[in-house]
Amino acid sequence: MAAWSERLAGVRGVLLDISGVLHDSGEGGGGRVPIPGSVEALARLKRSQLKVRFCTNESQKSRGDLVGLLRHMGFDISEGEVTAPAPATCLILKERGLRPHLLIHDGIRSEFAQIDTSNPNCVVIADAGESFSYQNMNKAFQVLMELDNPVLISLGKGRYYKETSGLMLDVGAYTKALEYACGIKAEVVGKPAPGYFQSALQEMGVESHEAIMIGDDIVGDVGGAQRCGMRALQVRTGKFRPSDEHHPEVKADGYVDNLAEAVDLLLQYAHQ
Amino acid sequence: MAAWSERLAGVRGVLLDISGVLHDSGEGGGGRVPIPGSVEALARLKRSQLKVRFCTNESQKSRGDLVGLLRHMGFDISEGEVTAPAPATCLILKERGLRPHLLIHDGIRSEFAQIDTSNPNCVVIADAGESFSYQNMNKAFQVLMELDNPVLISLGKGRYYKETSGLMLDVGAYTKALEYACGIKAEVVGKPAPGYFQSALQEMGVESHEAIMIGDDIVGDVGGAQRCGMRALQVRTGKFRPSDEHHPEVKADGYVDNLAEAVDLLLQYAHQ
Repeated sequence: MAAWSERLAGVRGVLLDISGVLHDSGEGGGGRVPIPGSVEALARLKRSQLKVRFCTNESQKSRGDLVGLLRHMGFDISEGEVTAPAPATCLILKERGLRPHLLIHDGIRSEFAQIDTSNPNCVVIADAGESFSYQNMNKAFQVLMELDNPVLISLGKGRYYKETSGLMLDVGAYTKALEYACGIKAEVVGKPAPGYFQSALQEMGVESHEAIMIGDDIVGDVGGAQRCGMRALQVRTGKFRPSDEHHPEVKADGYVDNLAEAVDLLLQYAHQ
Repeated sequence: MAAWSERLAGVRGVLLDISGVLHDSGEGGGGRVPIPGSVEALARLKRSQLKVRFCTNESQKSRGDLVGLLRHMGFDISEGEVTAPAPATCLILKERGLRPHLLIHDGIRSEFAQIDTSNPNCVVIADAGESFSYQNMNKAFQVLMELDNPVLISLGKGRYYKETSGLMLDVGAYTKALEYACGIKAEVVGKPAPGYFQSALQEMGVESHEAIMIGDDIVGDVGGAQRCGMRALQVRTGKFRPSDEHHPEVKADGYVDNLAEAVDLLLQYAHQ
């Protein structure tokens, strides 16, 4: 692999995943704790000339609640710096006149407060956690089966995420279940959908070849960003597993122990 | 399409699906009611020279409980005439020294009474109904992720079935969720797995080209049987939907209103 100086040359903007990069999650999405060194690393990054934006698939909490939690942990972050799937979904719903049946976590319901959910003509599925009961899944399934043209919008397609208690099933698994049962294909809003990365890049004002993604998900973060022409680093925190470094399809532009190491390298070698 | 006389000529054995052919299911698998004409049609079929066997993916109830229910409804059926996925799975588990974590309905737990479930080295998933909670799904996921060589055995791969209250998600949807989350492929025991149809044919003592399957599932019953060299009829009862008659991949050898019509035709045209 080329030297870091070569791999990071010309980087002007950094997209950061949040869960597994800034913090680890406790049980039930509560009890989140900063990953050692990340608070300080983010502060250093933001003091540099590099542009920074956050690009998350978080779909259990509203953007406001998420930012509140992160600030409480000491992170320098504001709501306007975060690209999140729920606000992006609301734009799509309004543009297309879609009225969703919501299979979502109560923590994110406020994001959809302005959306008409009467007489649904689509289903929106997010990381509902414990709300992925058989009854709730079956209701979403029945809504889809009654539509002539069933539309399923999935906030991300993650396989799993990591809480302190262990790996947890993410929305992607439940989206696959509905896709199979209904014989349809979901529209994904979130990583690794190319449009989602592109809107984050636009909001940051940086071209893809000048941007780097830092995430803990080899497929969703690294593979997705690379398919958009960006570079991508995987951190060995969060849901990282050693086998990710030998993934059959995706090879990161670099693997680092944590955000702190990534920032060290970026401050040393970007812009060259 | 050829005349019935041609399509049914030479049939010596009949494989019957149970749910949606003999009976419809009430809410929660309870309150099952015979489909009009089916009790009498089965009686006529069994008085004929045709061999009859039942081939079901039922995985919420033990074979004994299922047969008890059917006999109570008036059907002429005994346990030895039924090919069901749970007993077939137990044979596989014993042969391969597999100790399952069971993600199943309580109603079928007795089938696994003789199976060692300590220190699991595989997961068995069946139609667990309300037991498909997030917690139970996540536990099965975690067991699989901790195995070096994760083995997932799925009792059938049905997309959905019909209860009187509406369409209900079947095991196949949840199997897809675990396959996606773990990056693995499940082994299916049940229709439409070829080995499953073949064991039912062996138990009936009839070659595939002399056998016909009657079911309500265009893919699992009709498509699966045809891939084994059998003929297959779809009944317009149970989970049948009018669009099934224009399925893009599977075309039944005939569509009939119900089991009674199928038996009328078989008694008239088989054996010729």
